[in-house]
Amino acid sequence: MTQQLVIYNTLSREKEIFKPLHAPHVGMYVCGPTVYGDPHLGHARPAITFDLLFRYLQHIGYKVRYVRNITDVGHLENDADDGEDKIAKKARIEELEPMEVVQFYTNSYHSAMDKLNVLRPSIEPSASAHVMEQIEMTQDILDKGFAYESNGSIYFDVEKYNQSHDYGILSRRDIEEILENTRQLDGQDEKRKSIDFALWKKASPEHIMRWKSPWSEGFPGWHIECSVMSTRYLGDEFDIHGGGLDLLFPHHECEIAQNTVAYGKKSVHYWMHNNMITVNGTKMGKSMGNFINLDEFFDGSHPLLDKAYDPMTIRFFILQSHYRSIVDFSTDALHSAEIAMKRLMDASRNSSKIPMSESSTVEVKSLNKKCHDALNDDLNTPILIAHLFEAARIVNSAIAGVEKLTQEDITALADLFQTFLHDLMGIKDKSDLKDTNYEAFEKAVNMLLEMRQEAKQRKDWATSDKIRDDLTKIGFTIKDTAEGFEWSLS
Amino acid sequence: MTQQLVIYNTLSREKEIFKPLHAPHVGMYVCGPTVYGDPHLGHARPAITFDLLFRYLQHIGYKVRYVRNITDVGHLENDADDGEDKIAKKARIEELEPMEVVQFYTNSYHSAMDKLNVLRPSIEPSASAHVMEQIEMTQDILDKGFAYESNGSIYFDVEKYNQSHDYGILSRRDIEEILENTRQLDGQDEKRKSIDFALWKKASPEHIMRWKSPWSEGFPGWHIECSVMSTRYLGDEFDIHGGGLDLLFPHHECEIAQNTVAYGKKSVHYWMHNNMITVNGTKMGKSMGNFINLDEFFDGSHPLLDKAYDPMTIRFFILQSHYRSIVDFSTDALHSAEIAMKRLMDASRNSSKIPMSESSTVEVKSLNKKCHDALNDDLNTPILIAHLFEAARIVNSAIAGVEKLTQEDITALADLFQTFLHDLMGIKDKSDLKDTNYEAFEKAVNMLLEMRQEAKQRKDWATSDKIRDDLTKIGFTIKDTAEGFEWSLS
Repeated sequence: MTQQLVIYNTLSREKEIFKPLHAPHVGMYVCGPTVYGDPHLGHARPAITFDLLFRYLQHIGYKVRYVRNITDVGHLENDADDGEDKIAKKARIEELEPMEVVQFYTNSYHSAMDKLNVLRPSIEPSASAHVMEQIEMTQDILDKGFAYESNGSIYFDVEKYNQSHDYGILSRRDIEEILENTRQLDGQDEKRKSIDFALWKKASPEHIMRWKSPWSEGFPGWHIECSVMSTRYLGDEFDIHGGGLDLLFPHHECEIAQNTVAYGKKSVHYWMHNNMITVNGTKMGKSMGNFINLDEFFDGSHPLLDKAYDPMTIRFFILQSHYRSIVDFSTDALHSAEIAMKRLMDASRNSSKIPMSESSTVEVKSLNKKCHDALNDDLNTPILIAHLFEAARIVNSAIAGVEKLTQEDITALADLFQTFLHDLMGIKDKSDLKDTNYEAFEKAVNMLLEMRQEAKQRKDWATSDKIRDDLTKIGFTIKDTAEGFEWSLS
Repeated sequence: MTQQLVIYNTLSREKEIFKPLHAPHVGMYVCGPTVYGDPHLGHARPAITFDLLFRYLQHIGYKVRYVRNITDVGHLENDADDGEDKIAKKARIEELEPMEVVQFYTNSYHSAMDKLNVLRPSIEPSASAHVMEQIEMTQDILDKGFAYESNGSIYFDVEKYNQSHDYGILSRRDIEEILENTRQLDGQDEKRKSIDFALWKKASPEHIMRWKSPWSEGFPGWHIECSVMSTRYLGDEFDIHGGGLDLLFPHHECEIAQNTVAYGKKSVHYWMHNNMITVNGTKMGKSMGNFINLDEFFDGSHPLLDKAYDPMTIRFFILQSHYRSIVDFSTDALHSAEIAMKRLMDASRNSSKIPMSESSTVEVKSLNKKCHDALNDDLNTPILIAHLFEAARIVNSAIAGVEKLTQEDITALADLFQTFLHDLMGIKDKSDLKDTNYEAFEKAVNMLLEMRQEAKQRKDWATSDKIRDDLTKIGFTIKDTAEGFEWSLS
């Protein structure tokens, strides 16, 4: 067990001790969403994975600048049949405006991430806001001889780069194999080799989003935006670059190539990749009919779902697996996650109700270190959750009177849930949202149950049963305990 | 009373019938926040005013593209004592990053606006994302001979412009008077005249936010950003430009001058300005100690406040005045707004409880037209609210049995509150947020009050009084009515 944070670095394929370049500062860049569609599970996983890392780095004392971009330089085309003429006749206000689409889906993304309790990054730059810098970096790569112009577009010369550098250093792919695999995907003959990638694309007439450049009116390539935005805000050498495993190649491989030419360095020290999500064992895809939007989870409207799932259930479910394992979504797995999370939340709430004893019959203090060790070990959340279950078991035993705990240990247990379940894993208790109304309502329910207690004491079973039955009917769960009662609302 | 929307146009100083250029499309641009500080009342008023207009235009059938900008090209300076050398030695991650500040305050602004139930605009462009276009427009104005370069900065030549055009057309100021008033404010000798304004400013060494341009490394002037972003998304001629009265001069006057040179037209058809806010009769200002942030209203933490105010109270309070009148904030006025709003919210909720009659004893149908007429008359919200009070009086009389209403009239009243109070004025009922929990809690409170009714029937006054007293103690207001009871929670 290590006492230092250890991170699996995709670049070395090894777990490495995390040493920031400029401690206590940490720079972290994560590839954000393309905002041309509804946020879905594929957005949730990297956001939650790196949200945990963001929270944990701050917890262990770092000052983190977390940059997560918005990819808004899209490929939206005008629906006009034959370009310019027809468009020129239309007033701008009647045309499709890509930024209106961008704004709509950026808002949806933010709203879904807020529901998942994902903290906002320190800076959330958009690609369209950094076109000037992307043109500059492209010019720089051209000047250094690693790119060429073709028909107004600029392409990175991968073969030339690979003669003096290692294209494939991150993905460990063989350049010959890549040539093989990409040939059929790319029918564009203006490229010299099919593995070359665009730094700048000349816009065809129907492209709406376009900017002036020294080469053509067009738009930047996809890979250059992340090279620009990460180094713009974190410097040309920084600590962590994260993203989904699907971005490893070619996106992140291209970033390394671009940065190596422009800055003479690979820029990133730790590359981190979260694994993918499958649905009932198959890959998620729009054509597969198993593509579930986050809002469909939250309101249960997708045909594959049996009911609505609370955002916290989705978050907990994702964190139940290690971020480098595949997560398979199914309603059975979601039900289990729901039950497991409830067990921990109940224990967290009940930890304050444990009666204090003179001495403890069970060892509690080592749990804090064990939980830290789990996160230090490349964010091992399944192990962390196992330790929290042990803590929950202790809480339940202490409430049942089977175990005894000192005040110090009771506080340690409550702190454990607060730190690891709520603050770091980010699982919110609904009663965190407690406003005055909520408290008043809670007290009203307590009033009813006290009246039930009184009815029982005077052996008025009809009244006591009626109160319990009526409360059950409207959704409350009533449990009789040694000290009186407990209730919960699912 | 008019049946068409009439808007007071600051340009003509007259109320004019609103005729969009390309109906059913409407283009609307409003000056948004400078994101270098906490959102305050001065941000709330224009946001709420133009949110009402945005909602109303859609209500009467228009498709609105609403653009509200973020001013993030600020003047943040590095705290290093003597510029470059010291900065160059620091790692980028250790430096102040203006975009981190921008992100922080943009998030605060959004969060406060969400609480105030201000809808997000269709597009929310930021100035830093449109520097290229600002450089292009500046070049265009230079090329047309209405600007000059001086020491790397570009200034608009107001005096030359005024020879062939009317500088002062919007603000109705006299150019001589302007010369008089601005001389002492501007000590920059690189300008030819003190009324000239910057289109581009060369950055001094300590300026952090800077971009390359044909003239210098620097940043765009403040006025050019709105000329660029409004026309970029709405076309070079569009319907409505809004903002606070404090922006009328010089900001909006400069926009007209810039657009007139660049596009040969004034661009905006209807200029709309909301009036200012005073606090206890004096102007708000950071140095006055009466500068209350929105979050301070929401949590009651400012020393001038006696308690926390719900965001809906702030919204209602602002809408109680016509947008062209000064609003004076005081705790007395806020209390009155709170009571008035509660009266309308109660009536809205109770309208569904009115017993149906065969015929009506009071005329209800004309209220809908009266409410529309009020909004059509340059968004006359105080008159609208007066009509809603009349509707509330009818609801209360009908509940008390003093007036009789048909089902059709009852529905008309409920619709009236829904449309004008909730959908258009944007005053949310907390029970709109009704989730299953809220409903369960409501039913639990009803259970208690039904038990109280039963206790009363069996003349068990001790029990019935105890239930009422206990509920009152925890914050509920209990009212006995003809049919039984009513309760509310403040």
